[in-house]
Amino acid sequence: MNDKVMLRHGDGGKHTSLLIKDIFYKHFYNDMLVNSLDASVFDGNHWRLAFTTDSFVVKPLVFPGGDIGKLAICGTINDLVTAGAKPLYLSCGFIIEEGFNMELLEKIAASMGETCRKTGVKIITGDTKVVEKGAVDGVFINTSGIGGLQANYQPKPIQEGDQIIITGGIAEHGTTIAVERYGIKVEGNIKSDCRPLNHILEKLQTYMGSIKLMKDPTRGGLATALNEILEVSGRGIQLLEKAIPIAGEVKSINELLGLDPLYHACEGRMIMVVDKEKADEVLGEIRGCEGCEDAAIIGSFLSTDIPSKVVMETVIGGRRIVGPLEGDMLPRIC
Amino acid sequence: MNDKVMLRHGDGGKHTSLLIKDIFYKHFYNDMLVNSLDASVFDGNHWRLAFTTDSFVVKPLVFPGGDIGKLAICGTINDLVTAGAKPLYLSCGFIIEEGFNMELLEKIAASMGETCRKTGVKIITGDTKVVEKGAVDGVFINTSGIGGLQANYQPKPIQEGDQIIITGGIAEHGTTIAVERYGIKVEGNIKSDCRPLNHILEKLQTYMGSIKLMKDPTRGGLATALNEILEVSGRGIQLLEKAIPIAGEVKSINELLGLDPLYHACEGRMIMVVDKEKADEVLGEIRGCEGCEDAAIIGSFLSTDIPSKVVMETVIGGRRIVGPLEGDMLPRIC
Repeated sequence: MNDKVMLRHGDGGKHTSLLIKDIFYKHFYNDMLVNSLDASVFDGNHWRLAFTTDSFVVKPLVFPGGDIGKLAICGTINDLVTAGAKPLYLSCGFIIEEGFNMELLEKIAASMGETCRKTGVKIITGDTKVVEKGAVDGVFINTSGIGGLQANYQPKPIQEGDQIIITGGIAEHGTTIAVERYGIKVEGNIKSDCRPLNHILEKLQTYMGSIKLMKDPTRGGLATALNEILEVSGRGIQLLEKAIPIAGEVKSINELLGLDPLYHACEGRMIMVVDKEKADEVLGEIRGCEGCEDAAIIGSFLSTDIPSKVVMETVIGGRRIVGPLEGDMLPRIC
Repeated sequence: MNDKVMLRHGDGGKHTSLLIKDIFYKHFYNDMLVNSLDASVFDGNHWRLAFTTDSFVVKPLVFPGGDIGKLAICGTINDLVTAGAKPLYLSCGFIIEEGFNMELLEKIAASMGETCRKTGVKIITGDTKVVEKGAVDGVFINTSGIGGLQANYQPKPIQEGDQIIITGGIAEHGTTIAVERYGIKVEGNIKSDCRPLNHILEKLQTYMGSIKLMKDPTRGGLATALNEILEVSGRGIQLLEKAIPIAGEVKSINELLGLDPLYHACEGRMIMVVDKEKADEVLGEIRGCEGCEDAAIIGSFLSTDIPSKVVMETVIGGRRIVGPLEGDMLPRIC
């Protein structure tokens, strides 16, 4: 194996075939992948299916709490989970810069393979392109995913009083990338929340009738995701600043950088809209999941008489309208 | 609308939402796409499904016979067709360079939308990333696709005497890109063969029992694709050079450039391995399809006593072993 990726690794011939076998098949191994030619085949019977895609361009490629590979697998899994689907199969498309370090490529592939095994999803089809030096910055990855819908979940109309749960501390991924990008020295343990969320869905099976909507607050953060939910629901949201879980370090660094954590991407958190009668029980279940100990109810939906905005009661007792992201946040966070 | 794509078009907030609505929803419009949040839902019942992915990095973005958008849709459709599947749903992930011309982006999206309508496939989920100037060369597109397997087709063991059909002239796409890349002035009409192949599959429904294998000779060209088929079949192939359809201009230009057309990508051709009893009938049907008038039987499979190689009888009466692509062909042809 070369120690760098060469243009010929992407020409579709012998060298591409070697790269695929030595790195991708090694770490992603499963029968469906290795027996496929240009497409892989699976059984769609008895499922309603969810289909999603994401390209990952995060910089740096490796960061505290994860790397572009783990991020790609988690991101696509989590998009399927928001649709109430059990993640089943993924595709994986690499675009690699000529000269890219082969050891780092393998590290990224290994991280993807590990996340797949942990979550029970399989990469069953893939594509590899290599472009000349300067045509892409390092490596970009697209992962598309197919999930099987759980029969007992579907999005439901949102009512007055429905509660909003976030499954853990916000802004950890975006803040981690900002710290790395600006080269800030930080005391303490800031790391990305990047994690797969399918286990939460499995744990909440008996509550699916009470869950109205799910959304993961990635690019644009909690604020933008809530505004998207608001658009679907046609109802205003009352948000309680003091209830929003945020780690002390994350809060301090954003104050230092002058950034608003409400707009920072999470990569392992879910917003759930839950019937008010069941919200406490659902919260209890979520808090029992690994990494979700700080899950909290952070707000609720209002009567349709009230203008459809996200209004936050601030810790100092004021009120602030929280719009979707409009300014320029950090690019390439995922 | 701005006349250039800005970083904020990729931040996941208001501007991303505008870009998606003004360009992508406009040209890709269908209910499943516009009603989806992070994933789109479809019914997998009664289907065995095929799943495939491809990233497109072609340079130049627009070329005679197509552009990166048409190429992306056709490429993914054709990968599904090789699996014997009816293409149903596509995902589409854009990675765009900051400052990219908005009009060209819309032209590419329009070309994708047109190809979708022609072929009856729907883009039902998507993703848009914008990266800073220099981090990607223009625009790269990933399309992943889901197709429903035709009940009457599956790959079958290849026997001695099975015939190899190519659905039209070879090397047209790769040669077109080479001509554009090297800035060669050419007399005549050289253009990419980029086209969707699903209509051929529909026309051949009654012959599915006689079709043993299908493969599209993209990167690595006819030579590499035949070597991949050979690996699956365990049998040698006798190839007849004089039977291989190739346009006069394509042949001359490759002689001029010193390139071997057997290794140039096709983007609208299919190799089919067909039972010898039915090969002439199948060929007749294929020749009736638009753009396939030059389809031909170009070789056959040999006894297992003979070493498993692709051996070509040349026009001057010699014999040449045709291996898979090993050298460096032009990068970024698709």
